[in-house]
Amino acid sequence: MTSYCSTRGPIRRLFIANRGEIAVRIIRAASELGIETVLGVSSADRESLAARLADAVVELGPPAAARSYLNIDAVLAATEASGADAVHPGYGFLSENAEFAHAVRRMGRTFVGPDPETIELMGNKAVARECAMRAGVPTVPGTQGVVSDVELALGSSSVIGFPVMLKAAAGGGGKGIRVARSPDELATMFVEAQREALAAFGDGGIYLEKFFGRARHIEVQVLGDGQDVIHLYDRECSLQRRRQKILEEAPAPSLTAEVRDRLCAAAVALARSVSYSSAGTIEFLYDDDAGEFFFIEMNTRIQVEHPTTEMVTGVDLVREMLCIAGGARLRLRQDDIRLHGAAIECRLNAEDPDRGFLPSPGTVNGLRLPGGPGVRVDSMLYDGYKVPPFYDSLLAKIVVWDENRSRAISRMKRALGEIELGGIKSTLPLHLRLLGTEAVQSANYHTDFLEEWLAASAGC
Amino acid sequence: MTSYCSTRGPIRRLFIANRGEIAVRIIRAASELGIETVLGVSSADRESLAARLADAVVELGPPAAARSYLNIDAVLAATEASGADAVHPGYGFLSENAEFAHAVRRMGRTFVGPDPETIELMGNKAVARECAMRAGVPTVPGTQGVVSDVELALGSSSVIGFPVMLKAAAGGGGKGIRVARSPDELATMFVEAQREALAAFGDGGIYLEKFFGRARHIEVQVLGDGQDVIHLYDRECSLQRRRQKILEEAPAPSLTAEVRDRLCAAAVALARSVSYSSAGTIEFLYDDDAGEFFFIEMNTRIQVEHPTTEMVTGVDLVREMLCIAGGARLRLRQDDIRLHGAAIECRLNAEDPDRGFLPSPGTVNGLRLPGGPGVRVDSMLYDGYKVPPFYDSLLAKIVVWDENRSRAISRMKRALGEIELGGIKSTLPLHLRLLGTEAVQSANYHTDFLEEWLAASAGC
Repeated sequence: MTSYCSTRGPIRRLFIANRGEIAVRIIRAASELGIETVLGVSSADRESLAARLADAVVELGPPAAARSYLNIDAVLAATEASGADAVHPGYGFLSENAEFAHAVRRMGRTFVGPDPETIELMGNKAVARECAMRAGVPTVPGTQGVVSDVELALGSSSVIGFPVMLKAAAGGGGKGIRVARSPDELATMFVEAQREALAAFGDGGIYLEKFFGRARHIEVQVLGDGQDVIHLYDRECSLQRRRQKILEEAPAPSLTAEVRDRLCAAAVALARSVSYSSAGTIEFLYDDDAGEFFFIEMNTRIQVEHPTTEMVTGVDLVREMLCIAGGARLRLRQDDIRLHGAAIECRLNAEDPDRGFLPSPGTVNGLRLPGGPGVRVDSMLYDGYKVPPFYDSLLAKIVVWDENRSRAISRMKRALGEIELGGIKSTLPLHLRLLGTEAVQSANYHTDFLEEWLAASAGC
Repeated sequence: MTSYCSTRGPIRRLFIANRGEIAVRIIRAASELGIETVLGVSSADRESLAARLADAVVELGPPAAARSYLNIDAVLAATEASGADAVHPGYGFLSENAEFAHAVRRMGRTFVGPDPETIELMGNKAVARECAMRAGVPTVPGTQGVVSDVELALGSSSVIGFPVMLKAAAGGGGKGIRVARSPDELATMFVEAQREALAAFGDGGIYLEKFFGRARHIEVQVLGDGQDVIHLYDRECSLQRRRQKILEEAPAPSLTAEVRDRLCAAAVALARSVSYSSAGTIEFLYDDDAGEFFFIEMNTRIQVEHPTTEMVTGVDLVREMLCIAGGARLRLRQDDIRLHGAAIECRLNAEDPDRGFLPSPGTVNGLRLPGGPGVRVDSMLYDGYKVPPFYDSLLAKIVVWDENRSRAISRMKRALGEIELGGIKSTLPLHLRLLGTEAVQSANYHTDFLEEWLAASAGC
């Protein structure tokens, strides 16, 4: 890998294999580095903000992601034709597809992310877990890799203790996860889970983990160059609905300095053990009663919530990814990274929280986005933008920084209060309500909080 | 003054005696502190962004500033009627009017700014100069106060050395300033200047100062609570047209650490000598060849360019003003203030740089403001906003932060490049050209640079 790095030069022309706000984010970072950008779009995204800001736009195919953003052949052909010397995959879509990363490399182009081998390693959750254990990182009590049949699953569960979680080894993003609370439930679910995993991922491998119902989701941002790895501290992302994060913060409010040190050291140890290159995130489940954390998975790409880390550290993560992909060594040492203040991100999705989060595509009008001190907006919105119905519902990330968490909450309320967004429904009112709760004010929440709170609110 | 402070309580309802982006800025700070806002508007500003964001709006009078924003009786009556317990004057208008500050205090309301006595002291440029000398702060070589007649002016000039600047003791904001390059010029200009000052300010007092043609304009931000004073480092504002700043940066790029220490210490000494309370700015002329600085004046209010300081220190200056005005002691000690990275502000004015900076009022359409990492927008703009012809032409401040100055310049270019602003002319193209100059890239400029460059560009 060292020789591969050393033959690379700075990126001059970058193909962006993504859409929406992350495509805009990558264009901004590239533009500031003097890198030209070529954006691959589906026919539904020709008028997107990213398309308007990119130096050049190439059409990949029809709206359906499978035929455009997920169509490896189309993306590779467009990259080739564009004259780009590198590809940034963003998040989602092909960002953690090792085959794609391999193909980009075979074309003689630079993949802006870790090596395909690392993507592959971390993409298999059972293998990733083994990597973590070897690196001395605590993992959730569970089976050593895939469990072949129901008998073995039942035997393991008696050691782990119920409830247990059934996870597809080839899965990710919360897909295909089941929670069994008894041996009977496990017996039924195991067969279902195997069948579903085989259908979804072409791999029916299932492994078991102890289920923690009231834990927190905490993650550590790392940055590596294949030789050295540093961390950029932690984020808490416990506020989730159907395992999709909706509000994130940095740093994680519930960590003591001692736990934070151990957590970040564990993340660095794991990333070092795979000679990690590029930006990556190591996700942990955190039991704050016990002060214990357990490795969940590593995301080998930029994360939606990365701006919170950027705001508390002053480091531009996408810029660093581009520099490292261009062959540069890490410019930052661990000592350069200092936490300063607190940041919160609210995801504005085109969904109607009053109607079961029904997607709400349509044409945006009367748009007003917030501004002023400590407010950052990463968005794909403009007045007249037609939100297409084909993709993820994320429209904008409102991110605030302030000197401490309670100030940041006040600032976020102020910023959200400035927003006008006509023509579609969004999660804006949900965020305003959520920020008013005692649970959010005191950071006394866990990964089930949001759904329980929504269910309780619906009952009123 | 101490007893006055101690009888005050936190502000609950704030009257904002200003308009435009600074009114929006104050609303934001107040809102984050849970303070209600009442905005006084002229009839031309009923549909302004500030009016839309304030909790309540009161009409002061017709568009002409003399009959609305500068009409002390109207502003006081509106404050009284609004139930506000404090008044924030912003910058310009009544912000440095000691009579207004006195009247607010007589009404039993809190003036968000220094004591009227301090405003008065610093408002008289000759008195301010004496204050500086007493505090041991270097002043521009010049007369000790007002010069009564031409003979004395000629005598003083032979000591100071030509060119000399004639300044109205009661003036400010660059108004009524003349530069005489010979005894003959001085003799003519002195009489003119006296007459003009009498007409403009009701006070014909003129004093003389050495004129430095190629110096820099550097200023220090201070914050005091009447008992203690801290500084928040410096800004450079040398890029001016007709003595109006158009691009500012923090920290000042040309200062060595040693000069910075001396400069900031001088600013604190002056502010301490008048027991300064609230945010204030001490302006210096800086000769970087000699490494010498000289006091020019103190602005006893928030400054247009304050966001650059906020971005490099993380301190919200308007918030601190509101807390101090509410009776709080300074929360920050000098050691808490750390410089981090570099910030640049570009002022977007509704002026046509291709037609002699002709004001360009009109209706804004197709608006797109920049976003993403390190970009802050303090603006009064929205799509469909009618820029009125009655006031200052400032529309928006684009402020960027990055880890160093050269990165900040790249980021500013990127941010400006994202802007779409239809329906009116603005200084946007000027900024894009200016950022490309060697002078700006290397910070090798002075207060005459912009006008010389404009003249040279016009000749092409």
